[in-house]
Amino acid sequence: MYCREKSILAKKYHMLSLDDLREHFVTHLLTSINKGEPKNLYEPISYILTLGGKRLRPALTLMTCELFDSSYVKALNAALAVELFHNFSLIHDDIMDNAPLRRGKSTVHEKWDINTGILSGDAMLILAYQLFENYEPETFQNLAKLFSKTAIEVCEGQQYDIDFEDRNNVTIEEYLHMINYKTAVLVGAAMQMGAIVANASGKSQNAIYEFGRNLGMAFQLQDDFLDVFGDPKSFGKQVGGDIISNKKTYLYLIAKNESTPADSKELEHLYSIEPKNPTDKIEAVKRIFIKSGARDKTKTQIKQYTEKAIQLLNEMELNENGKDQLTVFANNLIARDV
Amino acid sequence: MYCREKSILAKKYHMLSLDDLREHFVTHLLTSINKGEPKNLYEPISYILTLGGKRLRPALTLMTCELFDSSYVKALNAALAVELFHNFSLIHDDIMDNAPLRRGKSTVHEKWDINTGILSGDAMLILAYQLFENYEPETFQNLAKLFSKTAIEVCEGQQYDIDFEDRNNVTIEEYLHMINYKTAVLVGAAMQMGAIVANASGKSQNAIYEFGRNLGMAFQLQDDFLDVFGDPKSFGKQVGGDIISNKKTYLYLIAKNESTPADSKELEHLYSIEPKNPTDKIEAVKRIFIKSGARDKTKTQIKQYTEKAIQLLNEMELNENGKDQLTVFANNLIARDV
Repeated sequence: MYCREKSILAKKYHMLSLDDLREHFVTHLLTSINKGEPKNLYEPISYILTLGGKRLRPALTLMTCELFDSSYVKALNAALAVELFHNFSLIHDDIMDNAPLRRGKSTVHEKWDINTGILSGDAMLILAYQLFENYEPETFQNLAKLFSKTAIEVCEGQQYDIDFEDRNNVTIEEYLHMINYKTAVLVGAAMQMGAIVANASGKSQNAIYEFGRNLGMAFQLQDDFLDVFGDPKSFGKQVGGDIISNKKTYLYLIAKNESTPADSKELEHLYSIEPKNPTDKIEAVKRIFIKSGARDKTKTQIKQYTEKAIQLLNEMELNENGKDQLTVFANNLIARDV
Repeated sequence: MYCREKSILAKKYHMLSLDDLREHFVTHLLTSINKGEPKNLYEPISYILTLGGKRLRPALTLMTCELFDSSYVKALNAALAVELFHNFSLIHDDIMDNAPLRRGKSTVHEKWDINTGILSGDAMLILAYQLFENYEPETFQNLAKLFSKTAIEVCEGQQYDIDFEDRNNVTIEEYLHMINYKTAVLVGAAMQMGAIVANASGKSQNAIYEFGRNLGMAFQLQDDFLDVFGDPKSFGKQVGGDIISNKKTYLYLIAKNESTPADSKELEHLYSIEPKNPTDKIEAVKRIFIKSGARDKTKTQIKQYTEKAIQLLNEMELNENGKDQLTVFANNLIARDV
């Protein structure tokens, strides 16, 4: 009994928090950055990688590796590959969206130029694959396979997102499929990669992937929600940004479907104008989002994805400690206001 | 004696020509193209892949696989990865160079838009890696490792090429390093990938890589040469294109180094102007290229790279038939006027 308790205590002692893992990850990232030639290729990569960000995906890779009783150290390079891919997609997406700012600083194509953004992004994608070379052939192949599948889905998601801008008949189902590809699958893959490195069973790998994917869905819908209903004091970004740019999010699609004909028409009108001072437009859209029940329905949807994730977790054969940590993490993610 | 001759004949019979292999490759390519959704992602990929082109790199992958006594069929997916990568780099380079035409047709960013070019290119790079999944873990890792190393070098080469536009002090050595990365290493890698699939020894792999790399250098310098001294009737592209766009090629760098001070100054002046009718400029630059000995020196350099390639080939333990075929191929490559 004493021994067992001691082992549980030891296990508890070794269970690193997400913040700890994030810190270990950033240390690894900083020592891995290429400061070589040609400078115009590698400086933008170093720039975007050190801009900060939540480091959520790589920290999840490390946490999952620990969860399956392996050391996070083994997963550092897989985590870095995930972070490189994420930042590659940010650089290219920012070019496509013509975005001047990222994490409060100039985007790469803004600080350098579009060509630099394209080429540095390309190099990051290749560098991500190179990180898998640190693993044995079998693990290498499993990581690269999952990575490629996910990366192609992210590209498809980005293409759907672009296509939807010009379409007025996007269904809820199509929208959820788009954010699944554009955002959620990478969260799932980040976690599964930790499980692959830890040599977890195929069954466990699939379960943790689905946990991450459902969490990713909740995360993205929460992002949409906070963009409209977030607290301006803590949100960081401009509240109402999606409304200003007429972005057809989940809130918009639900509201358009479930409003009275008059409100629906009004909403469509509001999403066709770009007033200099957007305050009135934002308020009007918000009213329709609330009145139509879109706000509540989005909250419910977020909760359902989170509950689905936690249910998947509970069905897994994991130590209770790990389950608790991931459950807390999942609940914090949807309780966040940033 | 009879048996030996018969076996040689059989071997000869089975030795496929580059044209045959090209044809087999194109058949494989056409059956592999994704015609699915989202169309705006996959149509541009299908478009660039079916624009034609010499298919030199994939055909060399197949030929090398045969050379090491394996069937080209095994190398089809590796060859397709090489072709996907090559076309990915064309799409992104064409955006960076603002090029309207590729193989006489609209470039992808011209036919669609820049965003489509960026995203379709990204997807092609990922699809290339996916093709390695058709091989066993060990082969998969060897192929992907070589591919990533080469792809990063191509990115670095492209960056040097861009950097050189703004520099007036590029050395011959730097220029050769740039074309080595931008062009030659992919020819070497294309061949080594055929050798990897055929399970050739490490020594043979390195030798065939170096053969391809040297041939790639000769190929690129020949390209520079033909752009100035090619026969307008057979060249296909506009002769003098590099001179019109003030591209500092090998010919230019040699001429600048080895001309009289007056000619060198004149050359620098000619490379600073963009006359509406470039005929006189082209003729003036040509005269300096010839007078300075740059034309002859380039021809010599091309010959040296080709001879080096053939020497490497002769040192290899290969059947004479295969050596003969590659020697003919190498000599045709520099005798070409297209």
